[in-house]
Amino acid sequence: MQNAAPLLTAVIMAGGRGERFWPKSRTDCPKQFLSLTDDGETLLQKTMKRVGGLVPPERVYVVTNAEYLPLVREQLPALPAENLLAEPEARNTAPCIALAAAVIAKRWGDAVMLTLPADHLIRHEALCADALGRAASAAAESDAMLTVGITPVYPETGYGYIAFSRAEGMPPGIYRVDSFKEKPDADTAREYVESGSYLWNSGMFVWRASVYLEALRQYLPRAYEIACRLRDVCDTPEFDAVLQAEFPKMPKISVDFGILEKSQQLYTIPGSFGWDDVGSWPSLRRVAKTDTNGNYRSGDILTIGTKNCVIAGGKKLIAAVGLEHTVIVDTDDVLLVCDADAAQNIKKVTDILHEQGRGELL
Amino acid sequence: MQNAAPLLTAVIMAGGRGERFWPKSRTDCPKQFLSLTDDGETLLQKTMKRVGGLVPPERVYVVTNAEYLPLVREQLPALPAENLLAEPEARNTAPCIALAAAVIAKRWGDAVMLTLPADHLIRHEALCADALGRAASAAAESDAMLTVGITPVYPETGYGYIAFSRAEGMPPGIYRVDSFKEKPDADTAREYVESGSYLWNSGMFVWRASVYLEALRQYLPRAYEIACRLRDVCDTPEFDAVLQAEFPKMPKISVDFGILEKSQQLYTIPGSFGWDDVGSWPSLRRVAKTDTNGNYRSGDILTIGTKNCVIAGGKKLIAAVGLEHTVIVDTDDVLLVCDADAAQNIKKVTDILHEQGRGELL
Repeated sequence: MQNAAPLLTAVIMAGGRGERFWPKSRTDCPKQFLSLTDDGETLLQKTMKRVGGLVPPERVYVVTNAEYLPLVREQLPALPAENLLAEPEARNTAPCIALAAAVIAKRWGDAVMLTLPADHLIRHEALCADALGRAASAAAESDAMLTVGITPVYPETGYGYIAFSRAEGMPPGIYRVDSFKEKPDADTAREYVESGSYLWNSGMFVWRASVYLEALRQYLPRAYEIACRLRDVCDTPEFDAVLQAEFPKMPKISVDFGILEKSQQLYTIPGSFGWDDVGSWPSLRRVAKTDTNGNYRSGDILTIGTKNCVIAGGKKLIAAVGLEHTVIVDTDDVLLVCDADAAQNIKKVTDILHEQGRGELL
Repeated sequence: MQNAAPLLTAVIMAGGRGERFWPKSRTDCPKQFLSLTDDGETLLQKTMKRVGGLVPPERVYVVTNAEYLPLVREQLPALPAENLLAEPEARNTAPCIALAAAVIAKRWGDAVMLTLPADHLIRHEALCADALGRAASAAAESDAMLTVGITPVYPETGYGYIAFSRAEGMPPGIYRVDSFKEKPDADTAREYVESGSYLWNSGMFVWRASVYLEALRQYLPRAYEIACRLRDVCDTPEFDAVLQAEFPKMPKISVDFGILEKSQQLYTIPGSFGWDDVGSWPSLRRVAKTDTNGNYRSGDILTIGTKNCVIAGGKKLIAAVGLEHTVIVDTDDVLLVCDADAAQNIKKVTDILHEQGRGELL
């Protein structure tokens, strides 16, 4: 008797504390819970929609930090309660996916897991769904670990890159990952883009639950033991106690460092669908709607001689006069005005506020 | 019997509607009623102090628009009620001074009038008082109309200039005004400053009441008639009715255009005491305190890599990152962010708001 085809599941990683959208993002409401596109939909809700065409809600899982459970419930009312998985503490992405893999293995057997960050933006959702669907087919039929690679469109220095090459024995459009390259400097990024041999690492992954667990066994054995224990007690009264006790013992490491850089069965499916990790306020100009002067605007905004700015307000009128390349973010208790090229220094502001004991502003 | 020496009086012109400090200044609270120096003192209060060393409160007069009477009373509680003169409508400075001259002539005879705008800043108040005192002596002993001229310290294009030369028969330090020059272009301003033959026109004037009334008779006879009528009914029950009926018939003209450019007895007393008309947000950096990076800051401000900016907030934290030469003004209902070189375009914003019927923001 032939095995049944593996089921398709989705895992949305929604535990990030992204500080780069401060002061709109706060420790009690990080980026994935914000609507940055002025259409009323948060990034988490967009991610739920993204997988919705491929996976029914009962097989969509959201992993987040315990303190964000109310936000997820509020924003994703259709998500079954038992599919909302709470990390007792943040241990980075390898343990996050291990928790999801344990629960999915118990409930759905050796299902394919589409694993996505909750805080990215994608312009052409249909093309993204197509790439994820093809990756799922490849993962169902092989032991491949697949990462969605994005055809780079400019020499971004804020992304990781993937060196890729032709893969024997895989379906067309699936390539072997030769190596990961950390965020490059500007010259290196330019070389990467010009060479045609590199993709951006999107952080979207596709594999079967058993493949991920086996990779844990090989590369992160402590995490593997805990994941197996979690799988065994899943949907029993013991689960919560084991999760609280054991999850914090997982190694704090990303899936990229902990697993993917070591894997010998790593593949990529290149895609091009207007993906952006929206890693900073200035990045919004790349992916969200802008006016004819290239300004991203959210709220009640009036501009005179102002171009290529990011202006995010609320009810108050914001008048911008003679500005270029400037970020303005207004909230009830903090106003940020920042040169777009200095956006990385927003972190210095939050560090200072932290030192000053002004945590209510973080 | 020798005539008694003329008394000294002061006239503070506080009716301006200055829009250039929008959005802090509003039609119902213009610039002279604001504290721009973060010391809690408004420009009007500073002006009152300025004359306070020379003139007792019972001889200080404030002329303002009727709608600002409550603000003046609140900010200058020591001012006698009968010294607060309300213009039924704004008719520019020549009628404003005519009203004050009429009242002063009735109450104090041929007194010397120190006439000052309510919305300037002066760094070295003692030196200013010295110049005003010397001008008052000259005005007491002659029929001179004196304007305080400021030794220019850079080629400002936003001020009017005075060409001056030696005057025969006047006390030392008093010069003849040869001509007024309107706001020059940058090259002309540079020539003026380099020549050493020009002063800035400060808008502070000194003359006797009778001299001003006589000048009105010569150059603005309609205003003269009305001023005489006002003088005659001053401190009678008729005064208010005459003021309401007649003042609006005064020609709408500045004292510079209407009188001074025509006068043959015009003199200037050059001074140098850190005077500034604070005509725009960027000008605050010249006269108010700045931090070591040249930033004017008012409120709860945190700066990273930010220099030569003007940041005026309230209780909300304002974080400025990587900015140069930028103006940030935050109020409860409007936020303005403006390149310092584009400050003249703030008026375009208020014009648009006016067109849009958003008068509540003006």
